[in-house]
Amino acid sequence: MSAPDVSSQATAFHAVDIIQKKCDGFELSAAQIDWIIAAYTAAEIPDEQMAALAMAVLFRGLSRRELDCWTRAMINSGERLDFSGLSRPTVDKHSTGGVGDKITLPLVPLVAACGAAVPQLSGRGLGHTGGTLDKLESIPGWRASLSNEEMLRQLEDVGAVICAPAAGLVPADRRLYALRDVTGTVESIPLIASSIMSKKIAEGASALVLDVKVGSGAFMKTQESARELAQLMVDLGRGEGVTTVALLTDMSVPLGLTAGNALEVAESVEVLAGGGPSDVIELTVALAREMVAAVGRDDHDPADLLASGAAMDVWRSMIKAQGGDPDADLPVARETDVITAERDGVLQVLDARAVGEAARRLGAGRARKEHAVQAGAGVQMHAKPSLPVQAGQPLITLHTDTPEGFPSAREALVGAYQIGDGAPEARPLILDRVT
Amino acid sequence: MSAPDVSSQATAFHAVDIIQKKCDGFELSAAQIDWIIAAYTAAEIPDEQMAALAMAVLFRGLSRRELDCWTRAMINSGERLDFSGLSRPTVDKHSTGGVGDKITLPLVPLVAACGAAVPQLSGRGLGHTGGTLDKLESIPGWRASLSNEEMLRQLEDVGAVICAPAAGLVPADRRLYALRDVTGTVESIPLIASSIMSKKIAEGASALVLDVKVGSGAFMKTQESARELAQLMVDLGRGEGVTTVALLTDMSVPLGLTAGNALEVAESVEVLAGGGPSDVIELTVALAREMVAAVGRDDHDPADLLASGAAMDVWRSMIKAQGGDPDADLPVARETDVITAERDGVLQVLDARAVGEAARRLGAGRARKEHAVQAGAGVQMHAKPSLPVQAGQPLITLHTDTPEGFPSAREALVGAYQIGDGAPEARPLILDRVT
Repeated sequence: MSAPDVSSQATAFHAVDIIQKKCDGFELSAAQIDWIIAAYTAAEIPDEQMAALAMAVLFRGLSRRELDCWTRAMINSGERLDFSGLSRPTVDKHSTGGVGDKITLPLVPLVAACGAAVPQLSGRGLGHTGGTLDKLESIPGWRASLSNEEMLRQLEDVGAVICAPAAGLVPADRRLYALRDVTGTVESIPLIASSIMSKKIAEGASALVLDVKVGSGAFMKTQESARELAQLMVDLGRGEGVTTVALLTDMSVPLGLTAGNALEVAESVEVLAGGGPSDVIELTVALAREMVAAVGRDDHDPADLLASGAAMDVWRSMIKAQGGDPDADLPVARETDVITAERDGVLQVLDARAVGEAARRLGAGRARKEHAVQAGAGVQMHAKPSLPVQAGQPLITLHTDTPEGFPSAREALVGAYQIGDGAPEARPLILDRVT
Repeated sequence: MSAPDVSSQATAFHAVDIIQKKCDGFELSAAQIDWIIAAYTAAEIPDEQMAALAMAVLFRGLSRRELDCWTRAMINSGERLDFSGLSRPTVDKHSTGGVGDKITLPLVPLVAACGAAVPQLSGRGLGHTGGTLDKLESIPGWRASLSNEEMLRQLEDVGAVICAPAAGLVPADRRLYALRDVTGTVESIPLIASSIMSKKIAEGASALVLDVKVGSGAFMKTQESARELAQLMVDLGRGEGVTTVALLTDMSVPLGLTAGNALEVAESVEVLAGGGPSDVIELTVALAREMVAAVGRDDHDPADLLASGAAMDVWRSMIKAQGGDPDADLPVARETDVITAERDGVLQVLDARAVGEAARRLGAGRARKEHAVQAGAGVQMHAKPSLPVQAGQPLITLHTDTPEGFPSAREALVGAYQIGDGAPEARPLILDRVT
């Protein structure tokens, strides 16, 4: 006998029946999915019922039909942006997240420099470092919140916006994402796919390029699961009329030489200035090529526009348009601690997950959404796998304002790197392409 | 990266890590189980986290070691009664519940008549009819709430008490049971076992006899799952020093000829008076024999004490001791509706689940705990499977104060009974015994 839910809607589904049905392995109807997402968004069913359903979905999955309905119901929970009035084609990018993944920062201005408009709505995230917005907030004066009108104007004028989504976009995901975070239901592939794609589709870009990370520092630990997630998201995007392509990229090693907030901004500016680590450049250019190809702006090669300084010009305009000073000094952590190489040799491995955990313990990330991140904190790497190192040379510099975090950050890095004699097996950065 | 929970305890476990561990199929430690049950009881972790954990337990199960810890943590969440000062040995009974299951009513006075003391703490339940307390409340004046002192005195004087548990008994189960009810996590065998056994062990009887129901009208639909539940409960009881035996009994057909509240009290009184349906008598006596054997009071056969009227004497004393008038007229529903046999023949089946659903629709049960039950409502059966019936004779009488419920109650009974020609396959009432 099930207790009726508290919804006052005429279509009287009972949340507990829907949970039970999913538990028992049956397919939910479109009407049931529409109802439960709408009722949850309206706070007509309580968190404990949605938590139970999310856990049942973690175990039972969603069929393709259920996933389509679920994603559409999420999109329909709020408003949908419309960029059809812009003179430029719009294209967006999403990364499933990894350690040192600052690619959005150089990528958005680079693609704008190629003639597309990139409306990148980013988050703050709960992770080893802050989200893209936290990183950019280390630039003095820069602000993450724009009105829809400001965003449209900046897209037309500059072609590049990185800002916080308006509250009206996918409110269902706002509640559900926070709930999944505290209920151990983050790692459901269909829930990840619908969360990402509902937001990206509601954000209204006409094309989307996904960077699905694989490895110790990513949600997806295996290529198999990453490919499944990528394919689901590509199919969802195409089903809603958004040209969607995904790259599977390696996240067993951190991207670039920094994991932090201001540290990653500085490295991104290096890349825009024509320098920077080769893996950051490679991935930025590869994603930019996908994005411009998706909207037919591939008459210039993004590599040339990065080299020419055109992307840097857009970066400066983008930062200024949001109140930031691109020439200001970035915050620096008060204390540093250096880990040195104990022998001569070649760096064999540098584990992304451990570096991320160290960055979090130094204060670069947040464990709860009401926490602040330290702008200057993080991990700076002086070598990456396959590079030679000498005994006594700095391998890793830890940065923090709270030096009591040094011992636990060092502890996180125990066993995370290894110096050997031969060259380690080469790992490609870009593993696959899913269309 | 997990959000920390809000507990202020020194042993800082994180609820989300515990959920994740169970999700991933690992065994929880005793310290983790102790912590999460205590933190949930103290409302230091929210319902959504416990809902997610309960769902993960539904899918992953609990190991024997986890189940022992979980049950002990539930018991330790509150007080534990102590009947060691009584002159009689104490023995209790629990049924997993079924349609028409009024056995507690004649059984408790019968076992007391044999010289044991039966401290039966009962519930109201969410089901097709009210719980045992709801049934007894149809007796004018009878009250369910006793202080611990009143209960002890009545046990010493009368030997029989059926009352509501004090609020201090297993508060963890109080919260968890209500949560499971709305989150589709009722049907987890280890959660059922720990819920029942934590309460029964905290209630302090020295022996316990379990009636585990199997069939359409029970939680356990198969003998296999019922036997698993029975064995887990027997082992849990014995592990805590309580002599525990379980009978597996059939619940594919309702017990007796009534399903309701006052209707079941009237039928129980018939049994105590030496009449009543044979299945109710058979199961009452079988359970009584187990109970008296478990505490060494088997010098008299309960069947004799039922026939002699000794059990009726205890019933009358028990009802009077709690303010009830055993001679008062019981409430009668305002309206009745009779379903008649459409042909001559032999009744082949009478589905317990359908009869239960009809009773609920007539107002005998409640869908939410704040609802009231109708004392007079329910289903009265005039034939049981294997009995001959004649075209036009009454098969079932529906009773209610709210006659608008008749059509939906009739609908619940469509296909629930069947009249054929030969004798149906005989079904034993008592299917197995688990020690």
